[in-house]
Amino acid sequence: MAEKRPFDVLNNALNNNVLVKLKGEVEVRGVLASFDIHMNIVLDNAEELKNGELKRKLGTVLLRGDTVVFISPASS
Amino acid sequence: MAEKRPFDVLNNALNNNVLVKLKGEVEVRGVLASFDIHMNIVLDNAEELKNGELKRKLGTVLLRGDTVVFISPASS
Amino acid sequence: MAEKRPFDVLNNALNNNVLVKLKGEVEVRGVLASFDIHMNIVLDNAEELKNGELKRKLGTVLLRGDTVVFISPASS
Amino acid sequence: MAEKRPFDVLNNALNNNVLVKLKGEVEVRGVLASFDIHMNIVLDNAEELKNGELKRKLGTVLLRGDTVVFISPASS
Amino acid sequence: MAEKRPFDVLNNALNNNVLVKLKGEVEVRGVLASFDIHMNIVLDNAEELKNGELKRKLGTVLLRGDTVVFISPASS
Amino acid sequence: MAEKRPFDVLNNALNNNVLVKLKGEVEVRGVLASFDIHMNIVLDNAEELKNGELKRKLGTVLLRGDTVVFISPASS
Amino acid sequence: MAEKRPFDVLNNALNNNVLVKLKGEVEVRGVLASFDIHMNIVLDNAEELKNGELKRKLGTVLLRGDTVVFISPASS
Repeated sequence: MAEKRPFDVLNNALNNNVLVKLKGEVEVRGVLASFDIHMNIVLDNAEELKNGELKRKLGTVLLRGDTVVFISPASS
Repeated sequence: MAEKRPFDVLNNALNNNVLVKLKGEVEVRGVLASFDIHMNIVLDNAEELKNGELKRKLGTVLLRGDTVVFISPASS
Repeated sequence: MAEKRPFDVLNNALNNNVLVKLKGEVEVRGVLASFDIHMNIVLDNAEELKNGELKRKLGTVLLRGDTVVFISPASS
Repeated sequence: MAEKRPFDVLNNALNNNVLVKLKGEVEVRGVLASFDIHMNIVLDNAEELKNGELKRKLGTVLLRGDTVVFISPASS
Repeated sequence: MAEKRPFDVLNNALNNNVLVKLKGEVEVRGVLASFDIHMNIVLDNAEELKNGELKRKLGTVLLRGDTVVFISPASS
Repeated sequence: MAEKRPFDVLNNALNNNVLVKLKGEVEVRGVLASFDIHMNIVLDNAEELKNGELKRKLGTVLLRGDTVVFISPASS
Repeated sequence: MAEKRPFDVLNNALNNNVLVKLKGEVEVRGVLASFDIHMNIVLDNAEELKNGELKRKLGTVLLRGDTVVFISPASS
């Protein structure tokens, strides 16, 4: 069995919904379109959330890696 | 099909309107004129926003990459 | 006797429950699935906690290393 | 046409007025005298602003790059 | 006499009680089990303190180096 | 004419009074005795200021570069 | 005359009392026992101060360099 690595989670989540928590109480939800080794992330059909509620629709958004707290694929 | 990368979003948004969220509740909206690998960004016809409302017009502005939270191209 | 190193704690905790404290009063509890040298961490069956109480279930989550304050394996 | 780069904005603004927003609600306005690749910046005839109002005159000032949020040349 | 270096304090404190102050008003007390050059630290029999009072017992805990403010061996 | 660089300001200010603004509302005023490329700075006859008023005399003080916001030579 | 460098201040202060201001309103006073190029510092007979008053005696303490704001040798 191959060793698992943290970025496997992102590879497996491509084209699926993820929840991203950023520093400063911001969360963004959307379809994971791409990412790189700095954890820069692109989401499509993204929505910005504040306290769990929709704040606004962002469409496509590039999230800077160093503001990411966690990334969680939506349960399927 | 070529692999997608996060910076493709910026390449595709050149000369188009983008919304940039910075650390510390500041947002800037303008036309993406240039960027580099540090995510330093130049916007033309830029406007600084506070709580979603226009705070002041900046004209051309260079945003330092490490203050960027996210960058979202305006929906077309 | 071999010298002990900090990451041994993570190696020994693989597939077991850990508590992770993140910057900004957030804690996540779950089964340690993988980690890397940047302390990026994947938890399965993860739960986000706020003030020690369950805030929401996250399922699988990738925690960015530079937001980690500490990681503590559950006592067995 | 040559590709544009973010630092072109600084090159073009040399000897002209710029507004610099720093982390922590501080802004400084003055004549751009020099800069380097870390975005360290020297302004002459500089004024420190707080909430848009003059706090004090600084004369020449060296701003450390990693405190810069944005730099905007004055419209001409 | 050999020159003293800061990490000598940690070498000398191995298997002894230390107090670790972390960023954000958190303190952890425990037996120093291991450390590395990034100041990542493992404590055994660790207790998390808040305002000098026991908040909870952690058992073994890995503290991320970049959250450390100071480390003080218990007086003997 | 030689190109100007930000650190020229520090070279020219050696042995003269400078005002240094640090992160977190602290300011220190004194005679610039030395500096290095990390912007670590030594001031002699230094005074710590809070809200523009003298908080205490420090004598000689080494300021860590990454806490510097700006450095301004006293007008002569 | 040899050029002065910021770390000379630390070399000259070895075995003497220094005041160290850390990020987050913490100060520690003690005898400078050792330091390294990251500005990691060991103090002996150290006392933690809060608002200028003794909070507790720490004995020997290792201060992590990146939390240092300034270091000031006691006037002699």
